[in-house]
Amino acid sequence: MNKFLVFQSDFGLVDGAVSAMEGVAYNVCSELKIAHITHDITQYNIFEGSYRLFQTVEYWPEGTVFVSVVDPGVGTSRKSVVVKTSKNQYIVTPNNGTLTHINRFVGIDEIREIEESVNRRSNTEHSYTFHGRDVYAYTGARLASGTIGFEEVGPLMKLDEIVELELFENTVDDNSVVGQIDILDVRFGSLWTSIPFETFNNLGFSYGDRIEVQIFNNKTMVYSNRVTYGKSFADVSLGMPIIYMNSVYHMALAINQGSFAKAYAIGVGSPWTIRFEKPE
Amino acid sequence: MNKFLVFQSDFGLVDGAVSAMEGVAYNVCSELKIAHITHDITQYNIFEGSYRLFQTVEYWPEGTVFVSVVDPGVGTSRKSVVVKTSKNQYIVTPNNGTLTHINRFVGIDEIREIEESVNRRSNTEHSYTFHGRDVYAYTGARLASGTIGFEEVGPLMKLDEIVELELFENTVDDNSVVGQIDILDVRFGSLWTSIPFETFNNLGFSYGDRIEVQIFNNKTMVYSNRVTYGKSFADVSLGMPIIYMNSVYHMALAINQGSFAKAYAIGVGSPWTIRFEKPE
Amino acid sequence: MNKFLVFQSDFGLVDGAVSAMEGVAYNVCSELKIAHITHDITQYNIFEGSYRLFQTVEYWPEGTVFVSVVDPGVGTSRKSVVVKTSKNQYIVTPNNGTLTHINRFVGIDEIREIEESVNRRSNTEHSYTFHGRDVYAYTGARLASGTIGFEEVGPLMKLDEIVELELFENTVDDNSVVGQIDILDVRFGSLWTSIPFETFNNLGFSYGDRIEVQIFNNKTMVYSNRVTYGKSFADVSLGMPIIYMNSVYHMALAINQGSFAKAYAIGVGSPWTIRFEKPE
Repeated sequence: MNKFLVFQSDFGLVDGAVSAMEGVAYNVCSELKIAHITHDITQYNIFEGSYRLFQTVEYWPEGTVFVSVVDPGVGTSRKSVVVKTSKNQYIVTPNNGTLTHINRFVGIDEIREIEESVNRRSNTEHSYTFHGRDVYAYTGARLASGTIGFEEVGPLMKLDEIVELELFENTVDDNSVVGQIDILDVRFGSLWTSIPFETFNNLGFSYGDRIEVQIFNNKTMVYSNRVTYGKSFADVSLGMPIIYMNSVYHMALAINQGSFAKAYAIGVGSPWTIRFEKPE
Repeated sequence: MNKFLVFQSDFGLVDGAVSAMEGVAYNVCSELKIAHITHDITQYNIFEGSYRLFQTVEYWPEGTVFVSVVDPGVGTSRKSVVVKTSKNQYIVTPNNGTLTHINRFVGIDEIREIEESVNRRSNTEHSYTFHGRDVYAYTGARLASGTIGFEEVGPLMKLDEIVELELFENTVDDNSVVGQIDILDVRFGSLWTSIPFETFNNLGFSYGDRIEVQIFNNKTMVYSNRVTYGKSFADVSLGMPIIYMNSVYHMALAINQGSFAKAYAIGVGSPWTIRFEKPE
Repeated sequence: MNKFLVFQSDFGLVDGAVSAMEGVAYNVCSELKIAHITHDITQYNIFEGSYRLFQTVEYWPEGTVFVSVVDPGVGTSRKSVVVKTSKNQYIVTPNNGTLTHINRFVGIDEIREIEESVNRRSNTEHSYTFHGRDVYAYTGARLASGTIGFEEVGPLMKLDEIVELELFENTVDDNSVVGQIDILDVRFGSLWTSIPFETFNNLGFSYGDRIEVQIFNNKTMVYSNRVTYGKSFADVSLGMPIIYMNSVYHMALAINQGSFAKAYAIGVGSPWTIRFEKPE
């Protein structure tokens, strides 16, 4: 193992929770190299946790161990697992949908249930609310440090036991594509859609084209405009909207040096759909 | 020393203050392993700084050096100190109450005043507002790296010179316990009380019991309800309140996937008390 | 090189962008020591990026490589560069003004344009919006790890090609000085001015003096008061204003345990000027 241990959670950084996880990990092995994706996943938002893993893990070296704790079901029968991806990385997480994007778009080779009789900090069997510290950080650290091998995590599960969230199915016809607004580029307020670049590109669009964009909140149209398709924000004037391919090769919608999400009060997830169409 | 240096402050991460402290430390020794508890302690809130140390230091390895800078009295006669805890960890801090919980619940073996003629960055004697950088980070780094031993920090002080904040004294009778709402699990809005699990448990409560809960802001009752006592949030339905033991083994009050603090506008500290009572 | 790689950006830490940059860097060299100044630079605010570099780089060891990505012009003809400072540190950044303070107050010895045909992650030539990941983090990591030397970054540019923001010119007469409110000590709401300590001191002020302070938003006076000049906040009562020398040796204005910026709704940048004057 390469000793990289990378955390993600919805715990925030305001209290000591993340530091407690780091301390537990360093107590397993002081040579670990610990980093963080984010701890500002919206509380209980498993989809967002799944997406942020998808967005980042590929940039990390082979053998990296990720620990993702967005765990609204702590204390229920949801299982604690470790998966090995097709790129030889490991993810330690509750099996609650957090693995959805990785399973669909990267691939998972094996999944094991964490055997808590072995892979849990001693004397924590009466602590029921902080598995992030007592189970996930601890197991992740043991794996990342080579203290245990992947086989020692616990028994193999079947790949079809991986819990998946339902993902939006884009619909395409000759002139248009409809997708979902999956998530925001939070800081800049850009809308990231479920529409891959290839799907969009197959409709025959070129840089500089003016494209019909409609955004719906359920069935209510909340935005309708012709928007330029460009390479990057600077292809349009300050304050103008632009369609572009984002850093994970999906189509996105932004305002150059503004926030599209704030400007039009756009949200994310199942009620929010977007349509790109060739003008007649 | 194990070379772990762990920072905490109320500086936030928005400007360069924390990075300046890191840089100073790495200039002392480039092999340090620097980590952070949080830099989002509420400004000037010494109680919170003391509590977050209590919440996290035990998870870190022996020999770890913590630097905590919540220092509203910078420039007054408050002393800069380093303590050695009963668990062989070190804390560098202004002696202003930040050591309250560690002294009470963990134990402090020795306290030394930082001798600034030695343990201060050179050419900073005219800088009066950033002891975090010029004194605390510098001294912490020298100690964590083994550049100086604990005896070289400065002269021994008496243990009773440790400045302590007054802590709430819980009151117990046959059927009830009254404590203070000490702090929030900020991200999730759960109320963490001053009542240890054992105190609560001695009243004879069992999982599944419905318990009378009353919350007061000074003498005004702001919440009164029967609440289920459970192991973890999932023991009650979505949106329902629950009494549980938190990750530092004290009693807490939450709403399953909601924020108790926001729902009822509950605050923390001396005006806020909570009572758990057996129903008749 | 010392293997220190220090990031700054306006990306925030809420999504995976910063982690993707870290991953890219560690893929170049797993022995890098990665740290962060801040990722909460106000979006698109090049001045703030320039100032935060000025505020922090001097505390880091010689040889440290900084990567600063505040890049509203991504996709325009703005050049990607690396500079070597007069203190033997390196800064990787778009040449868009981010180097203003370092050039003016620290000094830059050499500037090279990043040769993207070499110093860009392979297979990213169709990614147009995340040069932070594909160019800056990658080049910074190669430089910090010693994979390439500074000469291999790309061709030398002329020093006068360094793009500079216009800085406010303080005006001084016998009894007063006028400067700009450059930036906030964000967490504490203190106003940091463009007036160096020496300029102020040359007017003959002493600790304890009461000084006339006026603040203007363009030509509108928004604050006028006599304020005590002290060493640190504790030199005035709780809630009282104070003039002091900040941690980068410039004059600043604070409220002891309050926020001056919030109390009087003061902003930063070109419309906001401040005048210190000796009372008659």
